[in-house]
Amino acid sequence: MKIVRYQIDDEVAFGILDNGGSIRRLAGSPFDSLQPTDVTHPLDRVRLLAPVESPRVFGIGLNYVSHVREAGAETPAFPLVFMKPSTAVIGPGEPIVYPRQGQEVHHEAEMAVVIGKPARRVSEAEALDHVLGYTCGNDVSERTIQRAEMKSGALLMGKGFDSFCPLGPCIATDLDPANLDLSGRVNGEVRQQINTSDLLFSVPRLIEYISAAITLLPGDVILTGTPAGVGPIAPGDVVEIELAGVGVLSNPVVAES
Amino acid sequence: MKIVRYQIDDEVAFGILDNGGSIRRLAGSPFDSLQPTDVTHPLDRVRLLAPVESPRVFGIGLNYVSHVREAGAETPAFPLVFMKPSTAVIGPGEPIVYPRQGQEVHHEAEMAVVIGKPARRVSEAEALDHVLGYTCGNDVSERTIQRAEMKSGALLMGKGFDSFCPLGPCIATDLDPANLDLSGRVNGEVRQQINTSDLLFSVPRLIEYISAAITLLPGDVILTGTPAGVGPIAPGDVVEIELAGVGVLSNPVVAES
Repeated sequence: MKIVRYQIDDEVAFGILDNGGSIRRLAGSPFDSLQPTDVTHPLDRVRLLAPVESPRVFGIGLNYVSHVREAGAETPAFPLVFMKPSTAVIGPGEPIVYPRQGQEVHHEAEMAVVIGKPARRVSEAEALDHVLGYTCGNDVSERTIQRAEMKSGALLMGKGFDSFCPLGPCIATDLDPANLDLSGRVNGEVRQQINTSDLLFSVPRLIEYISAAITLLPGDVILTGTPAGVGPIAPGDVVEIELAGVGVLSNPVVAES
Repeated sequence: MKIVRYQIDDEVAFGILDNGGSIRRLAGSPFDSLQPTDVTHPLDRVRLLAPVESPRVFGIGLNYVSHVREAGAETPAFPLVFMKPSTAVIGPGEPIVYPRQGQEVHHEAEMAVVIGKPARRVSEAEALDHVLGYTCGNDVSERTIQRAEMKSGALLMGKGFDSFCPLGPCIATDLDPANLDLSGRVNGEVRQQINTSDLLFSVPRLIEYISAAITLLPGDVILTGTPAGVGPIAPGDVVEIELAGVGVLSNPVVAES
C-alpha cells in the first residue's frame, strides 16, 4: 500500500494511492488507523507533501561500507546516530535551498523508515512490527560545516539547514527493507546505486539500538545512511532519489534569496 | 512573570504563578498570547509539568571555560550544537531513570532558553526579542556512550535517553540571560556554581548562530551549556538545578526497572 500526505485547496489529508493514479482519502492519520473514506481525488489535482508532518528525524552515519571507504572513515562498531531538525523536512518537488554560507552541499540518497507504533527496548526480532513503511530520503549535507563540527564530536548544523531533508513521495508498506534497490541521480545522471542488503546495520538492528535508549514514536523517521557516490549539488540542479517499491523523490536546488 | 504548565485532575493548562503561590490559568498557550483567565488554583493542588510540551531541544557543548578545562577539551571556535529528543524531557519532580546499560551518568546544570517567536537569520541585536523566557535544565549525559560516539563525530545517544532532559519549574520572563547565578546540587551538596556572564557564546550569539541555518520555533529550547563540576549521579540521589529568578528544578534518580 502507498500512503501519501497531500494538500488540496486549503486542506491537508492522508490518502492511499490507487494503481490508477487516484488518491483515496483516509479518515484520519495512518498512525491511528488505515480507515479509507469515499472521497477520491485525481493525483494531478493535489500537491503531495512530505509523508509525515514535522517528524523527528534520526540519521545514521556511515552505514554502507562503500560510503565509509569514500569518506576515508573507519567502519563504525555501533550505529552513529544524529538528528535533523523537523524544519529541515520538505516534500516532493519542494526546493532544496542552497544556503548563503554553503560551500560544499552534497546529496545523500537514503532509504527512510517511518515508525508506526511506539518502540522502546524492542528486539531486532520484533522491530519491524513497529514500522509503518518506507520512503525516499535525501540527507542533504553541507560538508565544510559538517567536517568542522564532527572534529569536535558534534553533528547537527551541517545537516540541519532548513530544506536539507526531502522526504517522499509516499510511505510504501509491506516492503522488505533488506532488499530494496536505492539510487540517487543529479540531472538524470546516476550518482549513487546500491541495494539495501548492503546496510552495515539493518533496519531491525537500528530500531533495537535506538529504542534501547530513546522511545521511538509514530511518525518518527530513521534515515538509514547513504552509499558511495555522494557529491556536490548546485542551484539549478534537480536531485532524484529512487527506492524500489516507493517511487521517485525529486527536488530542485535553488539559491537562497 | 513566571509561566508554568500544569496538570489538575485530567486537564493540562498553562498559567501564571502569583507571588502568593497560586496559579492563574492562561486562556491558551503563552506562545500565542498571555491572556489570563479568572480561574486560579492553589499551587499545591496542581502538578507542575515541563514548561513546554515535547519541545525540540538544542544543546550546546563546552560553553563555559571551566567545563572545557575539566573535560580536557579545546575551547570551541564556534558553538557545538546537538539535539536531545523530545522523549528525553521530563518535568519537576519526575524521575531521571538510570538506564540498565548506564555506567557513568552525569548531571549538567544549565540555563535553558525558551524561544517565543520564530527566528530565522536573526542578528544578535534582535535575538532576545524572539525569547519567551528562561528555565532550569539538566543535560543528563551517559559519558561512556557519549565519549565513544563523539570520537566518531556524533553526539546523540549518550544524551538522548528517555528522562535525560529535566526542565522547569517555570519559564521566567524579563531576566538578563547574561547575568544569572546558576547552580547544581546533588543531595543538597553544591557541585556546580557559575554566573551566566561566563558563557563563551552568549544567548544572543547562540540564537544568531543556530538561526542562520535552522528556523527556531516557538517552544524550542536551547540548553546553553554546563559549567565545571559535572559528576556522577546514582539511583537514590536527588539532583537540583537552581537558576536565579526562576527557582529550583528538583529530580530524583531511580534505577530502570
